[in-house]
Amino acid sequence: MDEDRPTDEDLSMNDDPPYMDSNRSTGDRIEDLLSRMTPAEKVGQLVGTAPTLRPGRETVSGIAEAVTEHHLGAVSPFGHGGSPWETPAECVEVANALQREAIQNTRLGIPVLFYVDADHGHGFVKGTTVFPHNLGMAATRDPALVERAASVTATEVAATGAHQNLNPVADVGREARWGRIYETFGESPSLCASMSAAAVRGYQGDDIGDEGNVIATPKHFPAYSDPVRGEDGSPVDVSEYTLRRVFRPPFEAAIDAGAGSIMPAYNELNGYPVHGSTEYLEGWLRGELDFDGYVVSDWNGINMLHHDHRTARSMDEAVWQATTAGVDVASVGGVEHAERLLDLLESGDLSENRIDESVRRVLEAKFRLGLFEDPYVEADRVEQVGTDDHRAVAREAARESMTLLRNEDEVLPLDASLDSIAVLGPNADNLRNQFGGWSTISEPEPPGTTIREGIERAVPVETTVRYEQGASMTETVDLDAAREAADASEAAVVVVGETGYRHEFHRSETDRGEFPTRSELELPEAQRELLGAVRETGTPTVAVFVAGRPLAMEWTAEHVPAILFAYLPGSEGGNAVADVLFGDADPGGSLPVSIPRSSGHLPTHFDYRPHPHPIEGSPREENPRPPEHPETYDPLFPFGHGLSYAAFEAGELSVSTERVGPEGSLTTTVAVENVSDRGGSTTLHLYGTDEFSSRVTPVRELVGFQRVELAAGEGTEVTFEINLADLGVLTENGERRAEAGSITLSCAGESVEVVVEGRFDR
Amino acid sequence: MDEDRPTDEDLSMNDDPPYMDSNRSTGDRIEDLLSRMTPAEKVGQLVGTAPTLRPGRETVSGIAEAVTEHHLGAVSPFGHGGSPWETPAECVEVANALQREAIQNTRLGIPVLFYVDADHGHGFVKGTTVFPHNLGMAATRDPALVERAASVTATEVAATGAHQNLNPVADVGREARWGRIYETFGESPSLCASMSAAAVRGYQGDDIGDEGNVIATPKHFPAYSDPVRGEDGSPVDVSEYTLRRVFRPPFEAAIDAGAGSIMPAYNELNGYPVHGSTEYLEGWLRGELDFDGYVVSDWNGINMLHHDHRTARSMDEAVWQATTAGVDVASVGGVEHAERLLDLLESGDLSENRIDESVRRVLEAKFRLGLFEDPYVEADRVEQVGTDDHRAVAREAARESMTLLRNEDEVLPLDASLDSIAVLGPNADNLRNQFGGWSTISEPEPPGTTIREGIERAVPVETTVRYEQGASMTETVDLDAAREAADASEAAVVVVGETGYRHEFHRSETDRGEFPTRSELELPEAQRELLGAVRETGTPTVAVFVAGRPLAMEWTAEHVPAILFAYLPGSEGGNAVADVLFGDADPGGSLPVSIPRSSGHLPTHFDYRPHPHPIEGSPREENPRPPEHPETYDPLFPFGHGLSYAAFEAGELSVSTERVGPEGSLTTTVAVENVSDRGGSTTLHLYGTDEFSSRVTPVRELVGFQRVELAAGEGTEVTFEINLADLGVLTENGERRAEAGSITLSCAGESVEVVVEGRFDR
Repeated sequence: MDEDRPTDEDLSMNDDPPYMDSNRSTGDRIEDLLSRMTPAEKVGQLVGTAPTLRPGRETVSGIAEAVTEHHLGAVSPFGHGGSPWETPAECVEVANALQREAIQNTRLGIPVLFYVDADHGHGFVKGTTVFPHNLGMAATRDPALVERAASVTATEVAATGAHQNLNPVADVGREARWGRIYETFGESPSLCASMSAAAVRGYQGDDIGDEGNVIATPKHFPAYSDPVRGEDGSPVDVSEYTLRRVFRPPFEAAIDAGAGSIMPAYNELNGYPVHGSTEYLEGWLRGELDFDGYVVSDWNGINMLHHDHRTARSMDEAVWQATTAGVDVASVGGVEHAERLLDLLESGDLSENRIDESVRRVLEAKFRLGLFEDPYVEADRVEQVGTDDHRAVAREAARESMTLLRNEDEVLPLDASLDSIAVLGPNADNLRNQFGGWSTISEPEPPGTTIREGIERAVPVETTVRYEQGASMTETVDLDAAREAADASEAAVVVVGETGYRHEFHRSETDRGEFPTRSELELPEAQRELLGAVRETGTPTVAVFVAGRPLAMEWTAEHVPAILFAYLPGSEGGNAVADVLFGDADPGGSLPVSIPRSSGHLPTHFDYRPHPHPIEGSPREENPRPPEHPETYDPLFPFGHGLSYAAFEAGELSVSTERVGPEGSLTTTVAVENVSDRGGSTTLHLYGTDEFSSRVTPVRELVGFQRVELAAGEGTEVTFEINLADLGVLTENGERRAEAGSITLSCAGESVEVVVEGRFDR
Repeated sequence: MDEDRPTDEDLSMNDDPPYMDSNRSTGDRIEDLLSRMTPAEKVGQLVGTAPTLRPGRETVSGIAEAVTEHHLGAVSPFGHGGSPWETPAECVEVANALQREAIQNTRLGIPVLFYVDADHGHGFVKGTTVFPHNLGMAATRDPALVERAASVTATEVAATGAHQNLNPVADVGREARWGRIYETFGESPSLCASMSAAAVRGYQGDDIGDEGNVIATPKHFPAYSDPVRGEDGSPVDVSEYTLRRVFRPPFEAAIDAGAGSIMPAYNELNGYPVHGSTEYLEGWLRGELDFDGYVVSDWNGINMLHHDHRTARSMDEAVWQATTAGVDVASVGGVEHAERLLDLLESGDLSENRIDESVRRVLEAKFRLGLFEDPYVEADRVEQVGTDDHRAVAREAARESMTLLRNEDEVLPLDASLDSIAVLGPNADNLRNQFGGWSTISEPEPPGTTIREGIERAVPVETTVRYEQGASMTETVDLDAAREAADASEAAVVVVGETGYRHEFHRSETDRGEFPTRSELELPEAQRELLGAVRETGTPTVAVFVAGRPLAMEWTAEHVPAILFAYLPGSEGGNAVADVLFGDADPGGSLPVSIPRSSGHLPTHFDYRPHPHPIEGSPREENPRPPEHPETYDPLFPFGHGLSYAAFEAGELSVSTERVGPEGSLTTTVAVENVSDRGGSTTLHLYGTDEFSSRVTPVRELVGFQRVELAAGEGTEVTFEINLADLGVLTENGERRAEAGSITLSCAGESVEVVVEGRFDR
């Protein structure tokens, strides 16, 4: 191989080449380096590998061989499922060892870039801070908190020696059966946009070259999260209108926030697999969205062109297709991918220009990261992992995410001084289920607090805490003991939900055959039996859901007086749940997804386009039907729902102007007051409805949201800035345009109409 | 109004104008007539009315006023829900009376065109022949029979004085929750295409001017049948690829078969309501598909532009939008619509050219129908309604549709000479549910045979038939009596299923609050209880489903040995079911839709595009999982499933050539033999898979199907003609093109690969 390239000897005298001179411009350094690279070295920069790809060689030297012998420029050695290295110290050691090989034992000494799957904190590494998954983060309605959490994650990722996080998930969660909905920021395009942009800012900081920042990789562009029948990776088959209106906006926001990398979706849209689509990767991403970072393939995305989508008759052709379409880096293509690229380059099927274009993007990132100057990570930075400060952010995030769905008879908050409390259910004392997917699951268990532990810490020593499991996911476990514990106690907390899982084809991270069954959203019968048995005792009962998707909880909503949705709250989830149960914190979370009545009611989104004949409801009506009317498609609990222990009243909605041009802007103000005798928080959601338009618009869209925390009796005014264009119709070319007519704004039950002046162009 | 028009006096001397001269060409007659028409008369030709639109004037004279005073050119006086006239004699009388008004009491004597909703026979008129709904017709896999049935319907429709049938439904039934799936020919685009074209030929005959032919109106163009969450009229939000690959082909076939009219879908696609869409009504229909008939609006389709889709700020604008987009006739726009059209014409918002274009199309139809020569219907033609010959066709259709899903222990066929049989269930003796929607439901009950009656007629007088209802749709009814009847009998037939309904927002035609709940596809608990009680007796049991949708029958499939799917079999359904139960006919039907395991498994179609990670199954695997593996998305019973009392063996698949060019054609032949000792029928389905292609193709597509009936021991060869282009990829411009590579053909478990020669163009 590579017989024509300059030998190491030819270049070895070139001790201080211009590309190593940090006083030169990045552009000059890139061009200098590029001019020195052989074809094999070039294609190597466009390929990464992982331990799992080197069976039998999952060692540092095994991986190093891919770097030194095959010129690979990126590695994901740890921080993902299947890595043999799980402690921070191991990670640092591996990162530095591999980097040393790249620097010292390759001809040009180009540093390796390391990426990880830190989906909710650096969860595949032990002792890190594990945040709630994004569905919970979205429930906080607090973008600044999402940014802080991402910043913590970046610090911990960088401290283990990695440079890029294959995150955030910017997909809009529209399919409850899909096994990755918990990784999304929910069903609202604008909520996802706010949160995805915040995550990008948190990961990347102000300057990607500063310590503790990593490259963000919004994924999975442009649409992945509504696969046919919820099966991961199956086609997203929706209109282009929906692609552009629903799925693309978070990517636009993430790119505007400066995202350095993008990962395409590995499914196909409209018959075209994204990894092989010039339309999406060039036309949309580079053309319409002006993205100037690099595109890194999803784990298996290129192989699937041949094996699944069958648009490529061979793996060679798959590599050709992906590269031609605009994929820059094959995340874990491995040595085989590099060899295929080289063949295609040498045969002329791929042009050197095309390869150079991608290599420039990769080198630019490495220069910007400062890797040529400072390729190693200091060993003592592992002390930055899982600090108390970081855990405090995770606890704050989990606490703010807690969403109180129901609270009849003011069962909550519980009195912390009660004599006894029963803590029951499959997820009451299960850290793994509380972490959810994208977390290490090996022994010893990573640090964290279960809900049982959180409750035990929260109550005085004289309080009796009676723990019984009562049920696993699908089987009752000594139901009598659970019933007796509830009967003997002043309150019962039953923690139900799902097991942890990554994609649903990974099934449960723990036990096979349990949740998710994917096609069913109802609680398994055993968990319902447990709830029923506890209810029969008459003891005040709280159902806490630890789950990654909006489970259809109609039975629970009819039979259990208090329901707290805890999402997948991470390592500090147990404390956060206890904080809220006992009223130390207000449950200020708002649902980021609608909770449907059953799988048969899907999809249920607040921003649907009008249905002329909805059952038992009006298409432009905001309020969901009560559970007594099961024959409606309205959700059981709608997007935005979430109770507080306090009570709030909102005043009228005022606007800065009632007439505005289509390019204009206005502000909307609403007064809100805490009319209760305790502090609490609530989120104001501003919705807009374009009353008439040349293209059908949703019954409502989320225009803005603001979470406010108010002391007892305190009031404030909340102001939203609105660009009218953002409320307008989406035109064929993908831009928003307000049309003459009127737009109704509504917030907290109040609404106001704004006239859009101008000529209605029919 | 119309003050400038020529007075009646001006024209009254013109006794025999050229347009009345049948020796002239139709084109000349149209132009002559058009030149004589006032604007008001022109727009009137583009509007119809119905009795329900004239509240308080639902009389002949009330409707006649719309014709004589407001120039309306079309009326739907009967043959639809809500008409006061339900007997054939009344229909004839009304038709002739209205026509007389048009001929005698209008200035130009332009005859009125009458249209009806004869969805499965002329079901809103009493004493007519009521066929199985299309889902059952599709199960026959017998296009010639569909054509004969449509011809019978046309005869009966024409005999009552109508000229156009707002039918067939050419929509592809992809959504089991949708309340109109029973009106479709099922989930396969090519099956729907064959059957829709057959229906058009049956309605229109060779010459639309011949007696007994009516204009066909394929509907609802181009896509209506996969509304979001199954709610009728909600957006069909799918990729353009799916619009073109799945939904459009039956319309192409129906137009190729000469359909004289087309009805647009009243939903929106991609944000554009079809009734207001130039793209679909001009670009697709006139441009790509060369349709030259007239477009007639759906009942409420134009109003919805303003009231539901809100693309029109007023009803005036809705009329403008629809007309501009290409709607020719507002089916029941009524006087108000005509007035709006006239205003728009007079204001210049609509051009006279645009109006003339539509008027020409309408007049051409009236000339072709021979209405100017022969406007009336002879009263004695009512004798053509519901004849024995017609009923025999309906019985044949119902019999051929019967689909045997399961037959463990050869429970079926029943021995006709058994001593006793229990006949149970909510649909055992319910003619209305057996008819389904689009049928008159008023007293007295229209003629027809229930399943109980069919069984009573089929058995010898000495056989005891014990009938007990056992359950209504949702409540058990004297379950003990049902159990005892089953226990005392040698066999039990339990007829379960759904109530009749039209659109689902019409709910049940009979009782409110019963099936369908739409979101649930499972049998209601009461019906399962009845089946369970019967099973406990140990008596051999057959479950017969009378239902309009693929109900999720997993429990039944696990517990009841024999299951017969009877669809909505119409007036002769009782006899047809008895024919099959006792083995007088073989149950040769094949499922036209997949039967899912639950609502949560939707969608389940045989021709899905690859899912990379299917649970417990391979995306390119043909066989469904057995019910023991509930965690699969494979259907419980797949498309094409259907058992026979006989047994068949198929030989190898042979092809006329194993290498062919992309424009080429070939024939495939398969030998099939009846290896049992009784006659029977089976359908051979030929599937094609494009192995690799530039755009993702389905895992299989239906290429052809042939039903064969073979005596015991008889064999035959079945040959399919294949144009390779029909198997190819669907290109961006909507055409099919075979690409170099290979295509796998499979039939009855055998497969063969055909090489497509040429250069693979990447």
